[in-house]
Amino acid sequence: MRGNSFGKMFSFTTFGESHGNAMGVVLDGVPAGLMVDETVLHCELLRRAPGQSAFTTARKEPEVPEILSGVFEGKTLGTPICVIVKNTDQRSQDYKPEDYRPGHADKTTEIKYGIRDHRGGGRASGRETLARVIAGYFAGLILPQMKAFAWSDSVGNFENGLVSSRERSILGFTNDTISKQVEAFLLECKANGESSGGVVGLIVEGVPAGLGEPAFDKLKADLAKAMVSLPGCLGVEIGAGFAATKMSGSELSKNPQHFGGMEGGITNGEPLRLRVAFKAPSTLGEKAKTGRHDPCLLPRVLPVVEAMACAVIADHFLRQRAYHT
Amino acid sequence: MRGNSFGKMFSFTTFGESHGNAMGVVLDGVPAGLMVDETVLHCELLRRAPGQSAFTTARKEPEVPEILSGVFEGKTLGTPICVIVKNTDQRSQDYKPEDYRPGHADKTTEIKYGIRDHRGGGRASGRETLARVIAGYFAGLILPQMKAFAWSDSVGNFENGLVSSRERSILGFTNDTISKQVEAFLLECKANGESSGGVVGLIVEGVPAGLGEPAFDKLKADLAKAMVSLPGCLGVEIGAGFAATKMSGSELSKNPQHFGGMEGGITNGEPLRLRVAFKAPSTLGEKAKTGRHDPCLLPRVLPVVEAMACAVIADHFLRQRAYHT
Amino acid sequence: MRGNSFGKMFSFTTFGESHGNAMGVVLDGVPAGLMVDETVLHCELLRRAPGQSAFTTARKEPEVPEILSGVFEGKTLGTPICVIVKNTDQRSQDYKPEDYRPGHADKTTEIKYGIRDHRGGGRASGRETLARVIAGYFAGLILPQMKAFAWSDSVGNFENGLVSSRERSILGFTNDTISKQVEAFLLECKANGESSGGVVGLIVEGVPAGLGEPAFDKLKADLAKAMVSLPGCLGVEIGAGFAATKMSGSELSKNPQHFGGMEGGITNGEPLRLRVAFKAPSTLGEKAKTGRHDPCLLPRVLPVVEAMACAVIADHFLRQRAYHT
Amino acid sequence: MRGNSFGKMFSFTTFGESHGNAMGVVLDGVPAGLMVDETVLHCELLRRAPGQSAFTTARKEPEVPEILSGVFEGKTLGTPICVIVKNTDQRSQDYKPEDYRPGHADKTTEIKYGIRDHRGGGRASGRETLARVIAGYFAGLILPQMKAFAWSDSVGNFENGLVSSRERSILGFTNDTISKQVEAFLLECKANGESSGGVVGLIVEGVPAGLGEPAFDKLKADLAKAMVSLPGCLGVEIGAGFAATKMSGSELSKNPQHFGGMEGGITNGEPLRLRVAFKAPSTLGEKAKTGRHDPCLLPRVLPVVEAMACAVIADHFLRQRAYHT
Repeated sequence: MRGNSFGKMFSFTTFGESHGNAMGVVLDGVPAGLMVDETVLHCELLRRAPGQSAFTTARKEPEVPEILSGVFEGKTLGTPICVIVKNTDQRSQDYKPEDYRPGHADKTTEIKYGIRDHRGGGRASGRETLARVIAGYFAGLILPQMKAFAWSDSVGNFENGLVSSRERSILGFTNDTISKQVEAFLLECKANGESSGGVVGLIVEGVPAGLGEPAFDKLKADLAKAMVSLPGCLGVEIGAGFAATKMSGSELSKNPQHFGGMEGGITNGEPLRLRVAFKAPSTLGEKAKTGRHDPCLLPRVLPVVEAMACAVIADHFLRQRAYHT
Repeated sequence: MRGNSFGKMFSFTTFGESHGNAMGVVLDGVPAGLMVDETVLHCELLRRAPGQSAFTTARKEPEVPEILSGVFEGKTLGTPICVIVKNTDQRSQDYKPEDYRPGHADKTTEIKYGIRDHRGGGRASGRETLARVIAGYFAGLILPQMKAFAWSDSVGNFENGLVSSRERSILGFTNDTISKQVEAFLLECKANGESSGGVVGLIVEGVPAGLGEPAFDKLKADLAKAMVSLPGCLGVEIGAGFAATKMSGSELSKNPQHFGGMEGGITNGEPLRLRVAFKAPSTLGEKAKTGRHDPCLLPRVLPVVEAMACAVIADHFLRQRAYHT
Repeated sequence: MRGNSFGKMFSFTTFGESHGNAMGVVLDGVPAGLMVDETVLHCELLRRAPGQSAFTTARKEPEVPEILSGVFEGKTLGTPICVIVKNTDQRSQDYKPEDYRPGHADKTTEIKYGIRDHRGGGRASGRETLARVIAGYFAGLILPQMKAFAWSDSVGNFENGLVSSRERSILGFTNDTISKQVEAFLLECKANGESSGGVVGLIVEGVPAGLGEPAFDKLKADLAKAMVSLPGCLGVEIGAGFAATKMSGSELSKNPQHFGGMEGGITNGEPLRLRVAFKAPSTLGEKAKTGRHDPCLLPRVLPVVEAMACAVIADHFLRQRAYHT
Repeated sequence: MRGNSFGKMFSFTTFGESHGNAMGVVLDGVPAGLMVDETVLHCELLRRAPGQSAFTTARKEPEVPEILSGVFEGKTLGTPICVIVKNTDQRSQDYKPEDYRPGHADKTTEIKYGIRDHRGGGRASGRETLARVIAGYFAGLILPQMKAFAWSDSVGNFENGLVSSRERSILGFTNDTISKQVEAFLLECKANGESSGGVVGLIVEGVPAGLGEPAFDKLKADLAKAMVSLPGCLGVEIGAGFAATKMSGSELSKNPQHFGGMEGGITNGEPLRLRVAFKAPSTLGEKAKTGRHDPCLLPRVLPVVEAMACAVIADHFLRQRAYHT
């Protein structure tokens, strides 16, 4: 009821404040008997981890996942899987209770609860998303043929253009020329205490047809919620998205990609296609220049977008399997 | 689990196929003692009803809501409220099982269930949204100071521009000049068996600060799901939406409207602002010319967008009230 | 959240006040393609209906179920199934708002909501259970090999003894001698404005092994909730129940029936065995002599007990099928 | 969906296998600003801990609770609270995969999942209940005036009789004479590799009137589920329970205690009264003589019964507060 859980059959609950003892997740609904490779899990976490490059925050924590339950001799037991990541590098003195960043949860959290852990954004920190990456790893075990690929579609006014490969630069672009330009742009942002937004592109292949429920839990609706629940997300598009509103019915129906792999909210066997808009981070000025603050949520958000998509799809896969044999 | 319910504390379940016996909704979570005005409820339904103008489908059903339970002597009892609308004008012969419209649920429903009521789209019909309008009416009773206003922000390439009043044309525009142009455009679409998409703008005033949960059930996330669960919806924007991705952090923070009334997914007391993209309807060609098919989902979707927003907000209002006294 | 829904994957929501327009249920989670026989459904309802004999209330309503949605050409669509039963014979004048029966919901409902439909118990009427019987019918379609058999194990001090057949008397006993004695006893109760309690026995055969979740949603726990949620229920026993507390571990393990078909809350393939205690009805004195009030909740509660058991088991069957292929 | 969560507004998810890395719980729905006293929490856990006396298992683990999240400077934040207890004293060699105890989850777990952590009962271990005790502590913070008192009402054929004080012996009896007799009895059981069942009595005072929902989530129903979800529980009684089935309506209504503090499943302001039946533990013979196995689930289950009752009541208290202001 406090909204820290996601999913119905493949469900998970995240917990943890940025500068508390640990971040973590409890997964309930992972079938029994799946092989768990902790190295792969760790690698997924590293993709989201800070300190990867000059463009991401310098918080240097190992972010080692510890599996507390639900896995026995390398296999899932079917029981709840708890994974935690301890918080170790907590420069809490960087944060003051009276700092309210515009567009961030600082002020609204205080209004809501009357109390707040101001250190590092507390519960509202982007650090919460590491728990989502862990969930995405287990979602992938359920439907191994599913391949989610997210990329940096744009940062500020720089656009990646057509995706012709599955190779991503350190900034998440498949277009190296653009990536270089964005590097320069973000370094300048950082130097100026500025920040930038961007758009993430997402394609998911290997999704069976027939997933998604026809009314409120349309697959597109659950994907939209998953994405917009990410810190900084201000928009989502399915298939042609807003551009579709300018197409005639016949123009629209010429290319099945316009529907994003879903018709009536149910998958049709085509790849899923989404675009997700992230605003510029809220930390600006002197603090943004020196601290461990990213000038842009991309590229670190890419594995999180993939993870959330996989979580939604795995959930719906189990739901469909229960009803349709 | 089949996704026909929405909301947690203010929750409702919709049922009904377009050409079955009745459409309806069961609301669970409406507090006791609220005054119910069936005339107002009926008027809300009429806004969504077909046959309002040349631009909307000609299905002429009275769409009279019947309250079966939960209301006693004009007041809510706190028990589940069931409201149905009987289906009377069912020209089922207009539909053939073998008609699969691109971008519609026809084919995917059959894949999903192995069976389908093909008449009028069955469960996937836009007619399901009348149940959502009913839910929105009751949501409004919970938080009477909340005022949701949706308008036609664009149809095809026609844009309404700045909203300077709360008066809407029959097509949902506040700009009469544009509305006239769109009238001509849609009549032409209809004559050609064509259809058009559009964007709905939404503002909600009177929403208390502190609503929305910090992780998955951010208010923006639940609003996104609510909107994308609507038939034909391909995108949603919160505040500045995709445009925000091109703004620098400092530009973004200059205008609080860019955040759409939420920070960290929690309301800040400002009006909520969303934009919702709808694709062109799937029925094209001869059938679209003659049958009861709208050439555009706007303006009939406006009361549905308002209703879904109110349902989400009322749900979160009750959630917050439980925890924070 | 207001507790009018039951089940997770096979879930249903009941609505209706005893003297409102209709009672009904919306089922969400019935798989597609199952054959529906409305005559069988009606017969199930008749088992619970009043006016069956001198021992049950004289309310003579046809109790005809109307299927409003979710069934097409005799088969389930996989969409929500709404079934209603209209209320027609409403002698509301029999009830006064100031009548608070001890042990009944009259007073507590008013405390809870500050408002109440006093006519016929309103929402708290036993009439709500007809919706549960409808749910049980659909649960049976999901797992046709499942056979639930409930009987009158005792009424007052009269005990049925060993169940040696599946033939029940009009009072629900398998022992005809006892049944005759109870007939006389209940007629005397009625004449004196008195009422009596009783114990229902339940056996469910054909339940697959492996159903039930290991922590909170043990099958025994969900069955206990299902039974104790029935009006007038004050106790439930699994297998040997309270008698087990007087057995040593080795005595207990001699007979697998002592565990009631579940070990660790998970079915073991043996028949399920429960006992359910119902108190004497609350209506006493002059009103009990003349009105349409049963002197004992048995035997009309038998089909309801069977229905609730089937609903729980069907729910867990779908849950298990989702995870374990 | 795998049933490791309990409660709706005050909800918690437990995780952990008996011999895994840790047991724990994530609580979601604890309001913000409540004072947390870790010493009191630890003391609650000690009441359930093994090794308290000759009658309880000798597993000597400190069972120190570690709060990983949700508490800041001694107060709840309103965010999820994760508490873990590490498993340290794991004599796994005591357990063999091929040991299937009658009435225990050993065999059914394997049928259900096709895999099982056999060490110490894995997830089905009574050790899971420590997480419930932690949840009960936080439930108590929400409604501090609520006082739950559980006692050993009987063990085997020894009955405590009338409860005239709130002082419990080490075996949980308020009657010292009986307690001494049970001590001797249980020592003899242990020496013989035998075990015994028992009945727990429970009274909860300070529960506001108006809690409980009228249909499925009657307070009595949720309490029944809470109790029967405990390992070894085979029955539950509300108020007069099974004895009520032998009382006439007028006899029943003479004493309000017969209704157990609830009418129509809604609290009436009187103390709640329940009885809960536990079977004899499944471990018998040589292993029961030597290992760390209790000959009786009482008295260690007493704090768990209290905790579950408090969790149910706190949940319903928040639910009612949301709807009724």
